[in-house]
Amino acid sequence: MPVIAVIGDGQLARMMQTAAIELGQSLRLLAGARDASAAQVCADVVLGDYTNYDDLLKAVDGATAVTFDHEHVPNEHLTALIDAGYNVQPQPAALINAQDKLVMRERLAELGAPVPRFAPIESAQDAYDFWTLTSGQVCLKARRGGYDGKGVWFPNNESELTALVSDLSRCGVALMAEEKVALVRELSVLVARTPSGEVATWPLTESVQRNGVCAEAVAPAPGVDPQLQQRAETLGEKIATELGVTGVLAVELFAFANESGAEDIAVNELAMRPHNTGHWTQDGSVTSQFEQHLRAVMDEPLGDTSTLAPVTVMANVLGADEDPKMPMGERAREVARRFPRAKVHLYGKGHRPGRKIGHVNLTGEDVEATRRDARLAADFLVNAAWSDNWSAK
Amino acid sequence: MPVIAVIGDGQLARMMQTAAIELGQSLRLLAGARDASAAQVCADVVLGDYTNYDDLLKAVDGATAVTFDHEHVPNEHLTALIDAGYNVQPQPAALINAQDKLVMRERLAELGAPVPRFAPIESAQDAYDFWTLTSGQVCLKARRGGYDGKGVWFPNNESELTALVSDLSRCGVALMAEEKVALVRELSVLVARTPSGEVATWPLTESVQRNGVCAEAVAPAPGVDPQLQQRAETLGEKIATELGVTGVLAVELFAFANESGAEDIAVNELAMRPHNTGHWTQDGSVTSQFEQHLRAVMDEPLGDTSTLAPVTVMANVLGADEDPKMPMGERAREVARRFPRAKVHLYGKGHRPGRKIGHVNLTGEDVEATRRDARLAADFLVNAAWSDNWSAK
Repeated sequence: MPVIAVIGDGQLARMMQTAAIELGQSLRLLAGARDASAAQVCADVVLGDYTNYDDLLKAVDGATAVTFDHEHVPNEHLTALIDAGYNVQPQPAALINAQDKLVMRERLAELGAPVPRFAPIESAQDAYDFWTLTSGQVCLKARRGGYDGKGVWFPNNESELTALVSDLSRCGVALMAEEKVALVRELSVLVARTPSGEVATWPLTESVQRNGVCAEAVAPAPGVDPQLQQRAETLGEKIATELGVTGVLAVELFAFANESGAEDIAVNELAMRPHNTGHWTQDGSVTSQFEQHLRAVMDEPLGDTSTLAPVTVMANVLGADEDPKMPMGERAREVARRFPRAKVHLYGKGHRPGRKIGHVNLTGEDVEATRRDARLAADFLVNAAWSDNWSAK
Repeated sequence: MPVIAVIGDGQLARMMQTAAIELGQSLRLLAGARDASAAQVCADVVLGDYTNYDDLLKAVDGATAVTFDHEHVPNEHLTALIDAGYNVQPQPAALINAQDKLVMRERLAELGAPVPRFAPIESAQDAYDFWTLTSGQVCLKARRGGYDGKGVWFPNNESELTALVSDLSRCGVALMAEEKVALVRELSVLVARTPSGEVATWPLTESVQRNGVCAEAVAPAPGVDPQLQQRAETLGEKIATELGVTGVLAVELFAFANESGAEDIAVNELAMRPHNTGHWTQDGSVTSQFEQHLRAVMDEPLGDTSTLAPVTVMANVLGADEDPKMPMGERAREVARRFPRAKVHLYGKGHRPGRKIGHVNLTGEDVEATRRDARLAADFLVNAAWSDNWSAK
């Protein structure tokens, strides 16, 4: 059986293991701890640090392919692994676009992909100029390391912006700015690509963020014009191909109204791995993003991305401010009692406020009913209480 | 996270692990070898022998529930575990009906469940009497230990029968006989039941055996009269309830034509665990039999058993007489190339002629087209050749 080395130990690696088992494969993890989400469920675990080259070498020994559940492995290590003959997917030349927001913006602009106006910010003067250019519609971003709303700032005025830039620059944070988009909603196009160049795309997904964190996803995204669907798919495929992405690529999109009032899109972020907005594929698509990622990095033919239901809603389970006393198993039991169709996915992670500890997928016929039920289920898993006061009696 | 101890290390335990991961649970296996099918994919493995009580004790320590991927754990050990306070599901009083075919037949007859005529066979005289009673329509069975066509004989004449009975009795094989059924096809009703008494049933499945081994399954079984579907469901639920089964119960059925020519059923065998005829549920039902088994033994509310497609076909991958040179990974790749909808499940098992090493699930609209494609895919995985000479060009 082929061994796939996965650098990472979070829920994405955990759900890759689910797919790997059925594919007859075996994952080897490089994990930080034996009780990390993915390490709990894998037989083949190397404990170590993904920033340490020797630990990486131990994890990839004998693997047919090497992949990731995050984008934080130093690229110089990846390059060294490739030079040593290891089959790393995706490769650093692609990954840099998921690591450095300025590199990504410049590359996408070059490709003619729709992106907000942007600029590198290396000084207060740069910030001042960009503020003027955009009439104060400025979103300041750390070029690296931000996610889930971290590393993103919306200054209220010019002096706030320049103060931020001075402070952050002094701390060595490389910055860029982009023009704020008059967001109507967020969409996401999920693509998989093999080293041989085969590409497969799922239907556009609508995602809802709360406090900068994905709260829910609805697929197919409701009310998308077929032309926009086509454009988004073409865009996703183009980005995957031109950037040489392998495995799953999530293209997070801003959706806004163009001058004629029609829905239009611009690229927000890229992620080169299975993505939260693609969790619905586990229960709503013939091929899940986790299976597809493994097939793609192994350069196998890709699976069918058709949907299994008119609509699938994914609702995240994020740790409450205070963890309710009811054990998670009890909460899952109550959700199962009310919603026999709900697919609860739990990551084996302990409680922390706001931490992603699971999600619920629900397939259905009607978008609003399905969304309501998925939310209710996820809310119960978070709060151990029905937000609509339902009772089984 | 609750720990479920699974006694067994084969593909059924392996596929339970897939379900457990997403449920946020953790399986602990009692496995015979570190490289056994399920042990390859679990972090928590106790190596030992399921006939050894001390090994069983090691495996169940601290587990919320104890279950099985086979029926061969000595019942006295299970009783001892229960006496020691462990939560064993299913329990020996139910399991005996999946272990001893005579006990099962007697119990089912008592319940009024349709069974072929049968008799205990303890002597050549018993055999002679049963031969006469059934006009020679005799199927001789070992009461215990038979599966996949093993432990079943169809003697051609009276002297063959009495010779068999003498030989087998001399070897200490306890026997029974039943009247051969004029089989039209085989069906299977899959039920899950919780200790609290909740029951859920999937639609009737048609199974096709070759050489006594399940070769394929089609669900829902084509052309079943709704009344028969209802009767079979009621029968499955009644058996599960009256026998006190917990977890998944597969009721294998003989389907034959009654006097008026209508399809009728009688019980063939019982299995108290996920079953080969239920593998289609992984990709064709909202809730797979593996997830449902875990929910049931944990006494959680059961999942929805609706189908996800008009038809799902499962085709088994059984080791060829001689293993083709093409590695299994290459074969899976070729199948993926031709059938992007095919879900290939491989068990991580080495080749042996006739050994169950994987299966293919395929959902579709049309029974015959889906059956044909699933067979082609499974055949390719077995023989590394397309039985219809297809070529990708």
